Amino acid sequence: MQKIHAMIFDLYGTLYDVHSVSQACEQAYPGHGDAIAILWRQKQLDYTWLRSLMERYADFETVTEDALRFTCIKLGLPLLAGTVRQLSDQYLHLDPHPETPATLRRLRDAGVPMIIASNGSRNTINQVVSNSGLKWAFDQFVSVDDVEVFKPHRKIYLLAEQRVGYPRENILYVSANGWDASAASLFGFPVCWVNRDGGPLEELGATPAIIVPDLAAMADWLLELR
Amino acid sequence: MQKIHAMIFDLYGTLYDVHSVSQACEQAYPGHGDAIAILWRQKQLDYTWLRSLMERYADFETVTEDALRFTCIKLGLPLLAGTVRQLSDQYLHLDPHPETPATLRRLRDAGVPMIIASNGSRNTINQVVSNSGLKWAFDQFVSVDDVEVFKPHRKIYLLAEQRVGYPRENILYVSANGWDASAASLFGFPVCWVNRDGGPLEELGATPAIIVPDLAAMADWLLELR
Repeated sequence: MQKIHAMIFDLYGTLYDVHSVSQACEQAYPGHGDAIAILWRQKQLDYTWLRSLMERYADFETVTEDALRFTCIKLGLPLLAGTVRQLSDQYLHLDPHPETPATLRRLRDAGVPMIIASNGSRNTINQVVSNSGLKWAFDQFVSVDDVEVFKPHRKIYLLAEQRVGYPRENILYVSANGWDASAASLFGFPVCWVNRDGGPLEELGATPAIIVPDLAAMADWLLELR
Repeated sequence: MQKIHAMIFDLYGTLYDVHSVSQACEQAYPGHGDAIAILWRQKQLDYTWLRSLMERYADFETVTEDALRFTCIKLGLPLLAGTVRQLSDQYLHLDPHPETPATLRRLRDAGVPMIIASNGSRNTINQVVSNSGLKWAFDQFVSVDDVEVFKPHRKIYLLAEQRVGYPRENILYVSANGWDASAASLFGFPVCWVNRDGGPLEELGATPAIIVPDLAAMADWLLELR
């Protein structure tokens, strides 16, 4: 592997815990919190892929609300506009994974330039990171808003590479989403797949440079390497 | 709605029952047949969407085998090359839904030109339809092989329209896959969504011309209309 000069982080699932919305879902719909959070996330991804393929981009807030509406109807739960809006707002207040803040601090102290490249809109990314007090860690945010197509279309990886300003082989791309890790590998980044749930590699013909259980293990490896 | 001069059928889930593979899965992995069939189909779709977005087309047989390998590993089941091949071959021997043969006969007798437009490869479509003895019903098959991108990219709908030879507003597009029905509507076909499991409409901003519980109800409606 080439020397790593900078890092690109995925946001949802990688730095932040998408299932942290399940608590608010549980409060709104007692007994259904986990089921909502799981189906909601799956439909959210489906809609990003389907809209991208149909060339009908809508921003992440819109897709997130659409996915929640589908989820509630599918699960036979009453659909109240105020509740949908309120729960969707939870995606702006995601909890970072427990090891995220300290890991970012270590990497920042080591002088590694870090950016986020996310399916979130510019506004969403900014709010999630600000609300969790982690804005100091990142040099910039790259949003799919600028290319109007969601991951894993190569346009977002290319834009992120250009914004970082190093050749892709010198940029470590970090994602906990197996399909995103695969796509970034196929694009040409060395990739760290944060395999949080110990699931199998996606069968998409790509191999990450390294697989770790969490971000702390990634930082151990990277800082040793440098 | 304009007068209907021809029909385009989706194959998987619409004319044929994708869960008919679960019996063979159950024989190969006792106690896991249904779980395999459900996750397998979901990953199969995921991989068609992801590969299309990554612009890395592989044919349906390949994607189907890849999805089954992922499924077995994910469910902690032993992975034998012979078993994967044998189970994937089940996708060439799908059962038609119970009402499919008689409905096709009614429509054929009424003189409605019918084609299939499918994610399957040319070989796959041909085999599924031949193996079930329904080849007499269709004028032609349109495969994503000819555009090298899966549904819901508009290229496959456009190719199907061109092959039929009528303007899209005169072609009824029939699909049991909600996302496919939505995409075909947005493309401009009048769409019949065969909502077999009574689930909600996908939240993709499209409305089918008609929603029916099965193909027989579609034929009742169409033949009355003509």
